[in-house]
Amino acid sequence: MKSDIQIAQEATLQPVMKIAEKLSIPAEEVELYGNYKAKISLQAFDRLREQAEGKLILVTAINPTPAGEGKTTTTVGLGDALQQLGKKVVIALREPSLGPSFGVKGGAAGGGYAQVVPMEDINLHFTGDFHAITSAHNLLAAMIDNSLHQGNPLNIDPRQVVFRRVVDLNDRALRNTIVGLGGRTDGVPRESGFDITVASELMAILCLSKDLQDMKERFARIVVAYTYEGTPVTAADLEAQGSMAVLMKDAIKPNLVQTLEHTPAFLHGGPFANIAHGCNSVMATQLALKLGDYCVTEAGFGADLGAEKFFNLKCRFAGLKPACTVVVATVRALKSHGGVKKEDLNKENVEALAKGFENLEKHVENVAKFGVPAVVAINAFPTDTKAELDFLYQRCAELGIEVALSEVWAKGGQGGVELAEKVVRTIETKASNFQVLYESTEPLKEKIRKIVTEVYGGNDVVFTAEAEKHINRFNDLGYRDLPICMAKTQYSLSDDMTKIGRPKDFTVTVREVRLSAGAGFLVVITGSIMTMPGLPKRPAACAIDIDDQGKIVGLF
Amino acid sequence: MKSDIQIAQEATLQPVMKIAEKLSIPAEEVELYGNYKAKISLQAFDRLREQAEGKLILVTAINPTPAGEGKTTTTVGLGDALQQLGKKVVIALREPSLGPSFGVKGGAAGGGYAQVVPMEDINLHFTGDFHAITSAHNLLAAMIDNSLHQGNPLNIDPRQVVFRRVVDLNDRALRNTIVGLGGRTDGVPRESGFDITVASELMAILCLSKDLQDMKERFARIVVAYTYEGTPVTAADLEAQGSMAVLMKDAIKPNLVQTLEHTPAFLHGGPFANIAHGCNSVMATQLALKLGDYCVTEAGFGADLGAEKFFNLKCRFAGLKPACTVVVATVRALKSHGGVKKEDLNKENVEALAKGFENLEKHVENVAKFGVPAVVAINAFPTDTKAELDFLYQRCAELGIEVALSEVWAKGGQGGVELAEKVVRTIETKASNFQVLYESTEPLKEKIRKIVTEVYGGNDVVFTAEAEKHINRFNDLGYRDLPICMAKTQYSLSDDMTKIGRPKDFTVTVREVRLSAGAGFLVVITGSIMTMPGLPKRPAACAIDIDDQGKIVGLF
Repeated sequence: MKSDIQIAQEATLQPVMKIAEKLSIPAEEVELYGNYKAKISLQAFDRLREQAEGKLILVTAINPTPAGEGKTTTTVGLGDALQQLGKKVVIALREPSLGPSFGVKGGAAGGGYAQVVPMEDINLHFTGDFHAITSAHNLLAAMIDNSLHQGNPLNIDPRQVVFRRVVDLNDRALRNTIVGLGGRTDGVPRESGFDITVASELMAILCLSKDLQDMKERFARIVVAYTYEGTPVTAADLEAQGSMAVLMKDAIKPNLVQTLEHTPAFLHGGPFANIAHGCNSVMATQLALKLGDYCVTEAGFGADLGAEKFFNLKCRFAGLKPACTVVVATVRALKSHGGVKKEDLNKENVEALAKGFENLEKHVENVAKFGVPAVVAINAFPTDTKAELDFLYQRCAELGIEVALSEVWAKGGQGGVELAEKVVRTIETKASNFQVLYESTEPLKEKIRKIVTEVYGGNDVVFTAEAEKHINRFNDLGYRDLPICMAKTQYSLSDDMTKIGRPKDFTVTVREVRLSAGAGFLVVITGSIMTMPGLPKRPAACAIDIDDQGKIVGLF
Repeated sequence: MKSDIQIAQEATLQPVMKIAEKLSIPAEEVELYGNYKAKISLQAFDRLREQAEGKLILVTAINPTPAGEGKTTTTVGLGDALQQLGKKVVIALREPSLGPSFGVKGGAAGGGYAQVVPMEDINLHFTGDFHAITSAHNLLAAMIDNSLHQGNPLNIDPRQVVFRRVVDLNDRALRNTIVGLGGRTDGVPRESGFDITVASELMAILCLSKDLQDMKERFARIVVAYTYEGTPVTAADLEAQGSMAVLMKDAIKPNLVQTLEHTPAFLHGGPFANIAHGCNSVMATQLALKLGDYCVTEAGFGADLGAEKFFNLKCRFAGLKPACTVVVATVRALKSHGGVKKEDLNKENVEALAKGFENLEKHVENVAKFGVPAVVAINAFPTDTKAELDFLYQRCAELGIEVALSEVWAKGGQGGVELAEKVVRTIETKASNFQVLYESTEPLKEKIRKIVTEVYGGNDVVFTAEAEKHINRFNDLGYRDLPICMAKTQYSLSDDMTKIGRPKDFTVTVREVRLSAGAGFLVVITGSIMTMPGLPKRPAACAIDIDDQGKIVGLF
C-alpha cells in the first residue's frame, strides 16, 4: 500500500494557473508561488462583489478517537466527487502547521487518494503565511517589552502581560520562560512563555477578518497587558497595528492549490480549535462561495467544538449561511465510543457499534438545532464488516438520517459519489434555516450555559472562583457582548475526556476565561489546554531527510 | 527630494521572467514568487557546470562612519553602469534582515536611483529564506532541549549548550532568558537566549555551501553543546541535519530580482559581518559568474572586516578569484575619519579630509596584499566641494590609485559610467594575483596575528586567559585547521572604536573564541559583540502603516 507522500509525489499536477482559469480568475489576480501554489490578489474580492454565492457545505465529525475519523480526507474527497458530478466546486481548508510535522503527527492535507497537493510544500513553509503571523505576533511582543524597558510610559504591570510569544514548532522548553535578564540594557525581567503559532490570536484574527482594514482594526484591539490599575493595554496603545498589517499584507490573500483530481482548493489560515475557532479564513470561504456553486469546508475537532464555533462564531461574524452539514464517522471510531479498546477495533462488534452510535446521533441532533440539514458520511475502512455497515444504514434509516459510505481514501472522488449525490439532493430538497444558538447580547454565563446544555448535553455549568472573577472583570471592562469560544477536551461531549459515547448527567466546570479582543471572542476554558506541544522521545524529525536530487523521505 | 520608497514605488519593473530571459535562464528553471521575484532552480547549476565564468568585482569600503558610505548603493549603481556600457552584468547582494526595518535603520536595498526592487518585498518576507533559517535553527534548538528532557541520552551538560535560538526581530528582552521552567513535563530549566536570525550559524552555512548535500553535511557538523566530559555534541548526534535540510530546500536556491534599471540581481543570504563572514551566498555569486561577464558583489562593513573575510573565507572555501576591488569612500566619511564632528561635516575641510584619507589609503594597501587591483569610488554628496574633490583626485594620482566619482544615488547607472569604465579598464589591464593571507594549516594564533598585523596594522595580538583556554580547547578538539572569522568593531582598524583614521602602535585583545564548526571557521572575538539588537524608544514600527489599497507608508 502506498503512503500518502508516495501518492502525492507520483501525482501529476496541473499548473495552478490552469486551476485559476477553471474558476475564471484572470491571470493578473494570480500571484504565483512556483508553478503549483498561488495567492489570489485582493482585487478578486472587488471584482466579485456583486457575484451570487454558491452553497456552503460544512464537514464536521463525531468526537475524535484514537481510531481516526478522516475529516479532511472526506472534505477533499467530497469536493472531488462533486467535481466528478460536473459541479463547479471549490474546497476551503486550513493550512497545516509546520511544527508538528517534525514531532509526531503527519501532515494535514488529507490522505490516500483524497489529498491536496503539492503536499510537501503545503506541510512545510507553503506560502509563508504562518511565518508572517509569527513575525507580526513577535513584533508586537517585542514592542511590549520595549515599552516596559523604555521607561514604561503606558504604566504596564510586567506581571500582567498576557500576550506571549509564538514559534511554529513543538518546543516544550519554551512553554514557561523568564525573559529580560542580563542587566539594565537588556529589558525588564518577567515571566513569560511561547505558544505554537497556530495558537496566536493573530491567526484567529486572520481567519475572521473581512479585509485588510478589518484585520488592522482587529490587531489594534488586541489586549496585550493591563496597567497597575487594571486598565487594558492594547496593540493600538503601542502603535503596532500598522506594522503588523504590513507584515501580514500577503498572508491575508487566500492560497490556491488543487486536489489530486485538480479540484480547486483554498488553504488559508489554521487557528487552534480549542482556544480559537478552528476554521480556515472567512476570506477563503467567501471567495470559494463566489467562485463555485458549492464550497466544501471543514471545522476542527468534533461537531461539539468545530461545528458549534463554525456556526456561532465564523458564520455569525461573516454572515454565512451553511446549506448542509456532513458529519463524518467511521465504524472503528464508533466502536471506540462504544468502549472497544484500540487493539480490538479490527474485530466485528455490532453491540459496541450500537452503543457508540449515540455519539453520532447527538452530533446530528446538534446540527439540527442550528437549522442545518445533515448527511452522515461513513469513512470506509478495510476492516469494516457487512454486519456493521448494515447496522449503521438501518439505524440511520430508523432515525431518518441521510447516510452514505465514503471510500475516497481508497478511490478518490469516485469513492465519494454516493455521498456527493446525497449532499446535493439534501441541499436541493431540504431548506436550511440556519440560526445561531444565542444572541451576543445575552449575559456571558447564559451564553456559556446554552452551549453546555444544548450542544454538549450537560445539566449545568459550574464556575470556579477564578472564572467568576474573570467573568466579572470582562463584564466590567465592556466585553460582555462578545460571543464565546469554548476550550474543552475534543474527546468527549463533556469536559472529561474519559466520558466517551454520549455522556449524560454531567456538569461542565469553567476554570478560566481569557480575552481575545482582537479576534472578538472570550475563550472559556474548561480544562488544561495545551498551547505548545512537545516533541516525543524520538521526534519524527530524526527520520526526515532529503537526497541530493531534492527528494524528501520520512515526512509523514 | 524623493525618498527611497517613493522612487521604488514609482518604478516600472519588468516581469522577472524577462530578467531571467536576459540571462538565458530557461523558464522551467525559474520559480516565480509573484511577478517580480523568483528563485532559480538548482538544475541551473548542473546545466552551467562547464560554462566559463565572468569577472568578479568586490565592492568594499573604508571603515564605516556616522556619515554613511553607500556601499550597496555603489554596488547597484556600478552594476547598472556596466549594463549601460553594454556589458552582461549580474549583481550579487545580501538579503536584508526583516527585524531591523521595524527598529531604527532603513532597508538595505541600495538608495536613491541605485536600488534593487521590489524593495518593499525585499525588505519584508522576500522569498522566505530567513524564515526557513529561523525554523531550521529553532528546530535544532528544540531537539537539544528535547534530548535533555527525554532522559539526556547524549549526556549533554545543560550549562554547556552553546546553540541559542533565533528570531528575525530586534528584541532585547530575549537576549538572556531561562527556558524549561514549569515542571517536569516542561523541559529542563537552563539559561539560554535568542540572537537575531542573521547571526544564526545556519545563515553562514547557507552562504558558504556549494550545494544541498554540502549544506546538509555542514549542518551535521554544527557543535551545539558539550557533554559533562567536554566532548562536542553535534547536530548529527541529534539526527537533525536531514530535517534542517528539508526546511532549507528552497532557501538554498538563489533569488533573482532587478535593479531600477532592470539589471539582474541575485539577493541571497545575509550573514552578520562580525560573528560571521558578511557576504551573500557562494551559490549566488557562482551563478552570477556563470551567467554574466561581470559579477558585482559586496561584503559587509569596511575592507578590514568585509574584504578580509571575503578573501580569506568565502574565496578560500569557494575557490573564487576576484578580478577587481572597488573601495567606496565619501568626502564626508573621510572628513569624519579626520576628526570632524557629524554636525560640521557639511563644511569644507580639506585638512581633515587629508588626515582621514589615511584610512582609505590603508584599505587600498590591504587589497593589494591580497593581489587584487583596486579602484576607489567616491560616492558623491551634494555637500562635497570642488576643493575637496580636487584634493582627493590629486592625492590618489600621487599614490597611483585609480579613482572615480560615483553619482549613482542621484543619477542611477549614468552616474556610475566613469567608475564602470575604470573598473573595466583595470580588469583588462591589471592582472589579479589573488592569494589568501594565510594557510589554514598555520597555528591558530599565527593566523590571527597575521590578520591583526597585516590587515589592521596593529603591532601584536594579546590573548586574555579566557581566550587562551578557548584556543587550547579547539586545538585539542581538532579544530586547529579552521580559518579565522574576526569579530571586531567595524568603526576602527583597531579593536577600539574611538580610534578612527589610521591608528598606529596598537595591540588587539582577543577575549573569546567561538566555534562555528558547520560554517567552518573559528570566531575570534575582540570586543563586546551584539547579536540581538534592541528597539529604540520610539521604534520605526510605530510609524509604519498600510492603507486599504495596500500602499505602505513609513517603511524606510
